[in-house]
Amino acid sequence: MNLELSGIIAYPITPFTREDKLDMSAFEEVLNNLIQANADTIAILGSAGENFYLSDSEWESILKFSAAHLKGKLPLVVGVCEGTTANAIAKAKKAEQENADALMVIPSAYWKLNDEEILQYYQEISKSTRLPIILYNNPATSGVDMKPELILRIYNEVKNVQYVKESTGDLRRIHRIQELSNYKLPIFSGSNATAYEALMAGATGWCTAAPNIIREAPKQLYLAIKASKLDLARSLFRKQIPLLSFITERGLTQTIKAAFRILGKDYGLARKPLLDLSRDEKEYLEKLLIPLQAAQMM
Amino acid sequence: MNLELSGIIAYPITPFTREDKLDMSAFEEVLNNLIQANADTIAILGSAGENFYLSDSEWESILKFSAAHLKGKLPLVVGVCEGTTANAIAKAKKAEQENADALMVIPSAYWKLNDEEILQYYQEISKSTRLPIILYNNPATSGVDMKPELILRIYNEVKNVQYVKESTGDLRRIHRIQELSNYKLPIFSGSNATAYEALMAGATGWCTAAPNIIREAPKQLYLAIKASKLDLARSLFRKQIPLLSFITERGLTQTIKAAFRILGKDYGLARKPLLDLSRDEKEYLEKLLIPLQAAQMM
Amino acid sequence: MNLELSGIIAYPITPFTREDKLDMSAFEEVLNNLIQANADTIAILGSAGENFYLSDSEWESILKFSAAHLKGKLPLVVGVCEGTTANAIAKAKKAEQENADALMVIPSAYWKLNDEEILQYYQEISKSTRLPIILYNNPATSGVDMKPELILRIYNEVKNVQYVKESTGDLRRIHRIQELSNYKLPIFSGSNATAYEALMAGATGWCTAAPNIIREAPKQLYLAIKASKLDLARSLFRKQIPLLSFITERGLTQTIKAAFRILGKDYGLARKPLLDLSRDEKEYLEKLLIPLQAAQMM
Amino acid sequence: MNLELSGIIAYPITPFTREDKLDMSAFEEVLNNLIQANADTIAILGSAGENFYLSDSEWESILKFSAAHLKGKLPLVVGVCEGTTANAIAKAKKAEQENADALMVIPSAYWKLNDEEILQYYQEISKSTRLPIILYNNPATSGVDMKPELILRIYNEVKNVQYVKESTGDLRRIHRIQELSNYKLPIFSGSNATAYEALMAGATGWCTAAPNIIREAPKQLYLAIKASKLDLARSLFRKQIPLLSFITERGLTQTIKAAFRILGKDYGLARKPLLDLSRDEKEYLEKLLIPLQAAQMM
Repeated sequence: MNLELSGIIAYPITPFTREDKLDMSAFEEVLNNLIQANADTIAILGSAGENFYLSDSEWESILKFSAAHLKGKLPLVVGVCEGTTANAIAKAKKAEQENADALMVIPSAYWKLNDEEILQYYQEISKSTRLPIILYNNPATSGVDMKPELILRIYNEVKNVQYVKESTGDLRRIHRIQELSNYKLPIFSGSNATAYEALMAGATGWCTAAPNIIREAPKQLYLAIKASKLDLARSLFRKQIPLLSFITERGLTQTIKAAFRILGKDYGLARKPLLDLSRDEKEYLEKLLIPLQAAQMM
Repeated sequence: MNLELSGIIAYPITPFTREDKLDMSAFEEVLNNLIQANADTIAILGSAGENFYLSDSEWESILKFSAAHLKGKLPLVVGVCEGTTANAIAKAKKAEQENADALMVIPSAYWKLNDEEILQYYQEISKSTRLPIILYNNPATSGVDMKPELILRIYNEVKNVQYVKESTGDLRRIHRIQELSNYKLPIFSGSNATAYEALMAGATGWCTAAPNIIREAPKQLYLAIKASKLDLARSLFRKQIPLLSFITERGLTQTIKAAFRILGKDYGLARKPLLDLSRDEKEYLEKLLIPLQAAQMM
Repeated sequence: MNLELSGIIAYPITPFTREDKLDMSAFEEVLNNLIQANADTIAILGSAGENFYLSDSEWESILKFSAAHLKGKLPLVVGVCEGTTANAIAKAKKAEQENADALMVIPSAYWKLNDEEILQYYQEISKSTRLPIILYNNPATSGVDMKPELILRIYNEVKNVQYVKESTGDLRRIHRIQELSNYKLPIFSGSNATAYEALMAGATGWCTAAPNIIREAPKQLYLAIKASKLDLARSLFRKQIPLLSFITERGLTQTIKAAFRILGKDYGLARKPLLDLSRDEKEYLEKLLIPLQAAQMM
Repeated sequence: MNLELSGIIAYPITPFTREDKLDMSAFEEVLNNLIQANADTIAILGSAGENFYLSDSEWESILKFSAAHLKGKLPLVVGVCEGTTANAIAKAKKAEQENADALMVIPSAYWKLNDEEILQYYQEISKSTRLPIILYNNPATSGVDMKPELILRIYNEVKNVQYVKESTGDLRRIHRIQELSNYKLPIFSGSNATAYEALMAGATGWCTAAPNIIREAPKQLYLAIKASKLDLARSLFRKQIPLLSFITERGLTQTIKAAFRILGKDYGLARKPLLDLSRDEKEYLEKLLIPLQAAQMM
């Protein structure tokens, strides 16, 4: 594989109808919106895409539609978040069948996993596919925390693990991964609230669902940093940071679907037990959103 | 419903064949073993039963077999641990169809749930069934922590929530639930390592997978406390506590299946990514187990 | 030394005048009150005694007065909580000069201490005195957490360390210390809220400031457990637990001084930055206190 | 006061003789070294200066010497870290008497402080002096965590609190303080390991003991960022970050004194219970240090 991922990896949400079924025509709009927002790569079936809340057949529908729709347009990354290694391998194979470009793999745990269990989990998935793997660390959602030392061990021992998405928001983790890998392991910031700093520290890119609602703004920030335009970058960051912080803390799925409704698009609600934002939260979100939308139009 | 649960609620493990399929004849042995160990109630599809790692059809097979096998023998509690409210309701209905006696319901979360989301989750399940619900709090596995104040709110507002299984091992939580409910809400200890103290403090019973491998020992401890035989209880507790601590800390599923192999029963391995115990861990487990087995024979 | 400590180790508060000076006549009342409450041992200059907030000369005044006053009456334990090893040794020597019976030593840290630093801290103090040492673990106040394995190492390597006071409230710690020491290391519960369970599990005694305000009640609970009167013990515990929980969570110093004022004794306020209870907290405390006082009169 | 602090606030360590007394001629060298390293301000009696481990008279000696020595050279900030409000006020008054330029005040707690106690602590100190106060948040050492919302409340209500030193290393805290204060409250990074990112995000300066041993390197990094030279800044940061991370994690006092010995200067050891680095740690430190020293010579 000669694919080299970098820049903005954008996460589509998964729209539902009022009957809580997949709304595929809405999903097409969501994908097109991200393409127009100048995303470098599309990552489906991630946290923002409610992967954890979908049935296997829904997961497959999203995969097939995306693969067909994005073909020849943008690279496609497919999220894998399964309780068993066997199920993760099954999904990896399906992604490969549909000619996805990479897998984003997070361990999911009921019983806590030790380092050996996590390593073998990645090893077995890697052996089942030729797709490159982005190791995804997000203890706040998955309950599994992979420290930099473990991430490096997996990177060194598991052939297809070629990237890491780090979502703790702790910059020291990124420094440590850089140091341990002699700056060779490409790191994506999975934390919206500290993406600016991660990119300043040399991260390869930023995995974010924010382009759904603030469109090109994350890409502009990324480009300003790559061009070493520090004043511009800081100015862009300061406009975005209150919104980025809020959607991360309150939950990407609920906040982005609520933001879409504020913007006139009804893509349904997040699946229960997740609940819609309160009235106060919606008003706060609206305040954060409007100036960023205006900025987009210029 | 006139059912009143108390005493030992025992958790069967789920045996697999070498091909990683359900081994139903082994499961029958496992159930019979718990009945012979004098358990008061059987709770299937719990943490120890690898609920999180089973497919929907496997979940249903275990339910149907257990309902048929335990009919007229012991009350049956059915574990529900689902990512969406809709799936939890579907499983609650299946349990009711099979004439289960109660549900053991734990929230499962990818995105963190707030109090309102947890309350509504229990409320919607309650409205879908006539079965009593045991609210199950176990943040170490589920990632959702329900504090005593929230548990009481759910108990007061959700009709079918009639029991709580508290698994944090923090006795202060049990004291607080007792105080807030004026000692009315029956509490089961879901923590093996502090079950002795929870029962001393007035817990109604003990939810445990330990009877799989140390058979009547937990029931004997429970009865000694109920009979106010403090010296006997303390003596029984001291014999059990090293094993109870180890199986809880290292993971019930893996340790109990390993213990069964030590005892000559091959019920398969826990599903990957969970791995079998290391050689050292098995030797330690064997040392803990043998005297407790000998004690059982007397 | 043939001293064997057990039972209730009671902690006097340190009364201040309105000018924030030591009030020694009030302190005499406080000591006499604990003696009359049937305490087995008095431990001065502890957490409840505002050790951390006293000057060196105040510390010494409390020591000298207590040593003289308790001579021939009750064993005297002296609290040592110093930032440097040199200061801890200086205080240990002063306690020995005044013929104290034991030291209660907690490490205090600005920079986090590693195991070796903690071990050597105890080792050097031990070598400076012939007094037995109670190792005191209370990470919530001191910022230093000594796990059972480290406590055992110190117990095994440091001659004068002969007891442990465990204040985390985690019963699993007590079980582990018992198991590791083969039930030889005497453990005092430093957690009021879980003292009942610690004693049930075999703790040697209970270190508590509660006798200041509920007098003999903790001793009665201790005696009921020692006499294996489980029903009586549980009944006594249930009367005390709401108060014990509240004073521990809200801060012993402030709550006990507030309780004394409710009971008609003005022993001053805790030193700033600590503030007095709010009006609501005082009303709640009064409600908790009155029935326990009434019980004392019988 | 027209003083405006910014840039590098450098922290001298406190040298001791072999008899564990203050070594004032060595201290003069330490101060001069920081002046020559182009520090913008000197902050004595901080974490690195072993404030917590000094007697009151030692504290005063360091203050008086520094005030005399720095007069007309560099602004002087004085650290205040006391258990009682009264002692903090006494030290604030002494600093003012010696014409210090500002106070660096951290709450120190045995009993946990609530928001009201922390606010009044700062309020009373502020009322006792005309010196500006840098609010210092460092929960890892002090045990008191001041969240951005509380910091803003103190900033708004306490007249002399004019700066904040944030040491958690969590960039989200800095973003939040900026947002809440509309970018008006000047923030110093107290975290070495994330100072680069804090400055990129708009921090006013960096409080650091690193100039003791890597001299102008932190100032060069600060200046590169201020000049918007992103490539240079990132290159300087990558050279420094392994050392900055190590000294922060292992303890500033011990690592900087060990580094001085490697560099040929014996300024004594940190006070016990703190222990010197192990042999392996010293070798690792030496490896980190040498290239940075070489860089300084150019």
